[in-house]
Amino acid sequence: MKGFRDFYPEDKRKENYIFNIWKKIAEKYGYEEIDMPILEDAEIYNKSGQEIPEQIYRFKDKKEREIALRPETTPSVARMVKANPSVRTPIKWFSISQCYRYEKLQKGRGREFYQLNVDFLGTREMQSDAEIIVTLINILKEFGLTEKDFYIKISNRTLLNDLFKSLNIKNAKEVSRLLDKREKISESDLKKELKKLKLDNKQANKLFELFKLDSLNKIKIESNGLDELKELFEILKRYNADKYCKLDLSIMRGFDYYTSTVFEAFDKKKEFRSIAGGGRYDDLAGMPGVGYGMGDIVLGLLLEEKGKLNDLRNETDVLLIPIKTLDKCIAIAEKLRNEGIKVKLDLLDRNISKNLDYADKLKIPYVIIIGEDELKQKKLKLKNMKTGNEKLVKIEEIKKLL
Amino acid sequence: MKGFRDFYPEDKRKENYIFNIWKKIAEKYGYEEIDMPILEDAEIYNKSGQEIPEQIYRFKDKKEREIALRPETTPSVARMVKANPSVRTPIKWFSISQCYRYEKLQKGRGREFYQLNVDFLGTREMQSDAEIIVTLINILKEFGLTEKDFYIKISNRTLLNDLFKSLNIKNAKEVSRLLDKREKISESDLKKELKKLKLDNKQANKLFELFKLDSLNKIKIESNGLDELKELFEILKRYNADKYCKLDLSIMRGFDYYTSTVFEAFDKKKEFRSIAGGGRYDDLAGMPGVGYGMGDIVLGLLLEEKGKLNDLRNETDVLLIPIKTLDKCIAIAEKLRNEGIKVKLDLLDRNISKNLDYADKLKIPYVIIIGEDELKQKKLKLKNMKTGNEKLVKIEEIKKLL
Repeated sequence: MKGFRDFYPEDKRKENYIFNIWKKIAEKYGYEEIDMPILEDAEIYNKSGQEIPEQIYRFKDKKEREIALRPETTPSVARMVKANPSVRTPIKWFSISQCYRYEKLQKGRGREFYQLNVDFLGTREMQSDAEIIVTLINILKEFGLTEKDFYIKISNRTLLNDLFKSLNIKNAKEVSRLLDKREKISESDLKKELKKLKLDNKQANKLFELFKLDSLNKIKIESNGLDELKELFEILKRYNADKYCKLDLSIMRGFDYYTSTVFEAFDKKKEFRSIAGGGRYDDLAGMPGVGYGMGDIVLGLLLEEKGKLNDLRNETDVLLIPIKTLDKCIAIAEKLRNEGIKVKLDLLDRNISKNLDYADKLKIPYVIIIGEDELKQKKLKLKNMKTGNEKLVKIEEIKKLL
Repeated sequence: MKGFRDFYPEDKRKENYIFNIWKKIAEKYGYEEIDMPILEDAEIYNKSGQEIPEQIYRFKDKKEREIALRPETTPSVARMVKANPSVRTPIKWFSISQCYRYEKLQKGRGREFYQLNVDFLGTREMQSDAEIIVTLINILKEFGLTEKDFYIKISNRTLLNDLFKSLNIKNAKEVSRLLDKREKISESDLKKELKKLKLDNKQANKLFELFKLDSLNKIKIESNGLDELKELFEILKRYNADKYCKLDLSIMRGFDYYTSTVFEAFDKKKEFRSIAGGGRYDDLAGMPGVGYGMGDIVLGLLLEEKGKLNDLRNETDVLLIPIKTLDKCIAIAEKLRNEGIKVKLDLLDRNISKNLDYADKLKIPYVIIIGEDELKQKKLKLKNMKTGNEKLVKIEEIKKLL
């Protein structure tokens, strides 16, 4: 079906490469993995903003309940936290889960995607916002990306609301939603739309000025959000993470449930949509929380472009090719497997050239050839598929040669 | 929602333990991982037998197409093989995927489950059936189960059909479907039902005799299925796998798409439903194939009973507790993380006893305590949570002490 991906082995290898790094870094910071069903009561997505609820795959089950295929993970995390009051805080969880959205197909968007979700619940301390952002940065670094490739734009909704108030803008929610789309429409169109929302020219220009601000020191109002943002940038320095971060008050994020910190990761060339995004949601889970989601599609496009997904080899270490020696080779293959070597044994009596072609196409790094001669000599012929080198070796030596 | 599982960290740890062994053994034999969407066109399940199509979660998408949440994986594998004629044979694939069935809730059955699927396509050789069964046995062995805990019942549909013919039973399909339920109803009820299907007493008794057969040598008809079964048991011997296997002609398997070999894994105490089941399907994928599915629910119950899922520790290696030293501890935590240690850092300035209780409940094996004294001495206090032992150690020594 259109918009849905089948993962053949070469595709799944790339996915696993991505998933393994997601998991590695989340666990490095002490986050624990969770999982939940793809089906949820549709009503838990009521706070997911304007766009997402329209894109939900919904259906009624046999008892006429309205069921949704999850379009994102945060509401499920909040549901799980609320459902289990005995869970220990602080909660540091991550999940890698498939999500579904029925939306227009375009570059960087399918109807199904995998998403890493990382969450820190149980505190309002900016320390947790900082750690969450640091895990995001470290994931992108682990993929070999540097400060030349990406940055994190950071803002704070409380501060933005206070700034709106100081500009006498009353309909903050509508204005925010419009501004969230500002990269998709021209500045003149945007001004027209702002006029419709009763903003005069002066207010609109002030807004555009704010969005260009690169330092918090230039903001002269009293705001709890301003204090939070200052503290957050201070802590990020202690992680040497500030060079990846950038104040950008234009960051909105579509979700209605964010209450203060919001952030989004972008590629510096601006070729792609955001790589990841998140924020603080203090009213969703019965306790304060902060987290983000990172999908596999935009990230995958970026990594492909940077050449990070080429050359991923087959998990199989060796294709073992018996030449009329299958019975004996079953025992040899079992021996190698028990030493921890991943062995694909040709069971079909195919000739060497067919087998070599197969190993080549599947990117299996080594083949072992065993005919009667090799059995007599108690040696195996080991061929490195990359270099083409062949060696006669004892079975006990194989492991250290791979 | 009822029948759907949330996986909190302690649950997910058990799942990951199961998934990791599934993956480890499948890869040990050279099977490559694949993945596919949970949504499929509903029509691909038409050959899944009688029961499963009734249990499918179905809905119509915005274009009124009938969509299913996959109830099992084999039809998706067959679809992927047919969709990509350039894929290299033999195909050795596995997947770990969530499946959904709307069925009555009972022990060992939820409405959602994870399933390992292992498939070998592209040949009719019994070598592939044998290897597939060997991977199944090795998975159960890797969980610490022995021949005292489980066995594999093996049969062959071609042989059974030939035996039906030799007994002059015409309606093989209906009889098979009835016999598939024979463990759920009494022998006398079964005989009544067989009568309804026009089997006389003699035929019924002959059938029951066949189902008690423990050796193929007692079968005296010509049958390709008989030859296949004999060859299969011969090859299983070469893997030393025959002691786990047992002829049992009563094995039916619900799926209509199986054509010859069928097998099912059971716990020897017969406390649970089947642990795994599979067979050969030569008319489903445009090429011959053999494979099986193993769910996580029955397996999980069995492993719980055997005590294999207790004591799984947290992935986090260390909880680092700063005593008024958080700023300095951020750098220390980062240093340890970069050495490959998974560190959860207390960011909330909680006291030692709260932190120790937290580490204990989360099954984190070590804590490190760092106060001003430790900073002055350039040492950390390392506490083993299991033994209670405490040691003052240098930061460089931590890694080898964990």
